[in-house]
Amino acid sequence: MSPRITELEVTDIRFPTSLQLDGSDAMNPDPDYSAAYVALRTDDPTVEGYGFTFTIGRGNDVAAAAIRALAPYVVGRPAPRTAADLGTVYRDLTHDSQLRWLGPEKGVMHMAAGAVVNAAWDLAARRAGQPVWRFLAGMSPEELVGLVDFRYLTDALTPDEALEILRAAEPGRAERAARLLAEGYPGYATSPGWLGYDDGKLVRLAKEAVTDGFTQIKLKVGADLDDDVRRLRLAREAVGPGIRIAVDANQRWDVAEAVRWMQALAPFDPYWIEEPTSPDDILAHAAIRRAQPARVATGEHVANRVMFKQLLQAGAVDVVQIDAARVAGVNENLAILLLAAKYGVPVCPHAGGVGLCELVQHLAMFDYVGVSGAWEDRAIEYVDHLHEHFEDPVVLRAGRYRAPEAPGFSARMLEDSVAAHRYPDGPVWQEQTPSAAPPERTGDTAHRTTN
Amino acid sequence: MSPRITELEVTDIRFPTSLQLDGSDAMNPDPDYSAAYVALRTDDPTVEGYGFTFTIGRGNDVAAAAIRALAPYVVGRPAPRTAADLGTVYRDLTHDSQLRWLGPEKGVMHMAAGAVVNAAWDLAARRAGQPVWRFLAGMSPEELVGLVDFRYLTDALTPDEALEILRAAEPGRAERAARLLAEGYPGYATSPGWLGYDDGKLVRLAKEAVTDGFTQIKLKVGADLDDDVRRLRLAREAVGPGIRIAVDANQRWDVAEAVRWMQALAPFDPYWIEEPTSPDDILAHAAIRRAQPARVATGEHVANRVMFKQLLQAGAVDVVQIDAARVAGVNENLAILLLAAKYGVPVCPHAGGVGLCELVQHLAMFDYVGVSGAWEDRAIEYVDHLHEHFEDPVVLRAGRYRAPEAPGFSARMLEDSVAAHRYPDGPVWQEQTPSAAPPERTGDTAHRTTN
Repeated sequence: MSPRITELEVTDIRFPTSLQLDGSDAMNPDPDYSAAYVALRTDDPTVEGYGFTFTIGRGNDVAAAAIRALAPYVVGRPAPRTAADLGTVYRDLTHDSQLRWLGPEKGVMHMAAGAVVNAAWDLAARRAGQPVWRFLAGMSPEELVGLVDFRYLTDALTPDEALEILRAAEPGRAERAARLLAEGYPGYATSPGWLGYDDGKLVRLAKEAVTDGFTQIKLKVGADLDDDVRRLRLAREAVGPGIRIAVDANQRWDVAEAVRWMQALAPFDPYWIEEPTSPDDILAHAAIRRAQPARVATGEHVANRVMFKQLLQAGAVDVVQIDAARVAGVNENLAILLLAAKYGVPVCPHAGGVGLCELVQHLAMFDYVGVSGAWEDRAIEYVDHLHEHFEDPVVLRAGRYRAPEAPGFSARMLEDSVAAHRYPDGPVWQEQTPSAAPPERTGDTAHRTTN
Repeated sequence: MSPRITELEVTDIRFPTSLQLDGSDAMNPDPDYSAAYVALRTDDPTVEGYGFTFTIGRGNDVAAAAIRALAPYVVGRPAPRTAADLGTVYRDLTHDSQLRWLGPEKGVMHMAAGAVVNAAWDLAARRAGQPVWRFLAGMSPEELVGLVDFRYLTDALTPDEALEILRAAEPGRAERAARLLAEGYPGYATSPGWLGYDDGKLVRLAKEAVTDGFTQIKLKVGADLDDDVRRLRLAREAVGPGIRIAVDANQRWDVAEAVRWMQALAPFDPYWIEEPTSPDDILAHAAIRRAQPARVATGEHVANRVMFKQLLQAGAVDVVQIDAARVAGVNENLAILLLAAKYGVPVCPHAGGVGLCELVQHLAMFDYVGVSGAWEDRAIEYVDHLHEHFEDPVVLRAGRYRAPEAPGFSARMLEDSVAAHRYPDGPVWQEQTPSAAPPERTGDTAHRTTN
């Protein structure tokens, strides 16, 4: 008898990161990194799966409510095991016509679907005794194509073209998997560059990142141009000319402002400008890419595969930044990896937050082993936050992610961490003043976007 | 003393419309029209405001949870009265950095902001003793520009350009308001064309619509091409060549299929093709517009002003279909009206559902009086459903919407209707089998999008 899913348990977990200004940027000055955390239980206590929606605090309860609304779509069904099972779970969670009205395929409801889809992948990979990257690498091109929803994609990528990409990568899979296990996957370091850090801390952390073996770092920009010029000069002096410095505006600008700002930063050779403007604005990204010298990167807030498709079709991006937990899980990210491969654009995943490094490493590694077959000019973001709360945390050595070998998606948190950070009743929150309450209203500034 | 908002009350209201197949289309076969309904109360019992998020059933509870999450942003503040107040409410509801992570500006959280913003407008217009369209028409161009968030718009529309558009329309306001009151605003009829109706009912309702004075009807298409050819032929025979027949695919197609389908329907002269593909797919709409003869219309699922901006920039649409309740309320719809005016594209609002006609008529009427100054080739969708549940329902005469004169946004439902349709405990639902449970899982079809 195959086990059946008997319960979808959701927990609102929040970390009081705003107290340290970790994660502060031009649009997000005081995040409390949070997860609407899902556990899929079955009638076999050895079979379970974990996933989550990442948020930055307020609204994590709304994400939890959205996940709860998906319980009827998974509870009662057989525990997924095969690629076909995981294709069905994904479709059932994203194709219900009534829930689709709430997106379609975007925002809270779509992120909730992603959490549950990823929990199903964690469960299936655990059953298979394999980490998700290897579980994917064990699937045939036909099985992988069956995981993807090609609706709205066929003007850019047909199932046959996807099959061709996957078949071309098939002969080299074993060799690349061995190389991945031996060398690890490239990472880059964001920790030096938060806006809330002072210059001394920025310089110290930038140097440490180079010492640690990273060949790329990232700085948050976009609040004040003079500050950014000073900070980027300091960072460039600290790391020297051979290290890539990406900058990240977290959606702060309109087109003209992005161009002006990046021209002012150009003397310090920024490697890419990340999220220069609205993640919805394909045409603006294309315009910014044409008008200033840095590469254009986006993706952490790009809502779905249709938007990624257009960014590629429009020649709007040089770097595709998938996020493991914003779109509808592994299945939709596989579609995005295939689109990026079709257009020859490198994928450098967004990570950080809570557990995003843990999840997304599997997708980048599978991209290397089974899709693009390349890791040149690719790197997974690395932020040294909150890994200690996970059962199977990421391991970096000499600036590279070691390939995880434990079964699953590295998504499970430690039970003590879950209990401690449960919002609002966990002991960590009982000790706090309620910083998850809404900010003071000022209301008198025309564009108050940063509280 | 100005009254203060003391409570944000949310009610999950659902109508069992799936029993009659009202509202059935190629993507939404069995909607239960629903509203996550908001009441803003103040410490003055005569000062209150109403709004809602429209959904089609399952997930209405998630919309309600999202609205509840916004209570701290309005409870305790002075009841809005002026344009400046309403600008502040809008910004406070859409600019909180932590909630913004859940969109940004899209999906459930954004629709929730729209419900609360609209309730604030209902409240302020009631205080002013004016219907919302007239309340808007009493604001100066400067006040109106102050309602808009120009972030991400300035490559297409600057505040100065918006001011110019509004000033150009200012001298004719009084004359157009008088004409609107005398003649009413053009409507078009969707009721004949639901996919769930048989041919006899289609022909009968199409003829009735013409008799009722409508000069445009709309048919749902996209499930089966042979059926659509037959239905469009029947409709054309029923109404004659002088009546416009729009068709609506509700996002069913990819580009190539849309073009093939519309070429097959071309002999029956469809006036526009609505939602041929994903509402996110700007480039696909542009491609479809170039490759077949019908006008291209979309908007009811377009997430925000940034997406509308790009549809206009890319020359992807001939008709902008604003929805009163998907974007962040009156303020964001004003931005969209201004963008459409800038690009010279007519606005034909989406309506139907529950209360969408009631709300959106105010926006179309203000567009005529104060923005575009035109109603040629413009019409508000009209569906004859569920108006009886509203305190101030729309009134049509000879195919035209009469301008509402009661104060507010026509958003308030009758208390008896609210009590009867409360989900799941209202008497209407106590009598039903639980049709709001998720559909049977089939799971074995590759593209099961219609249950």
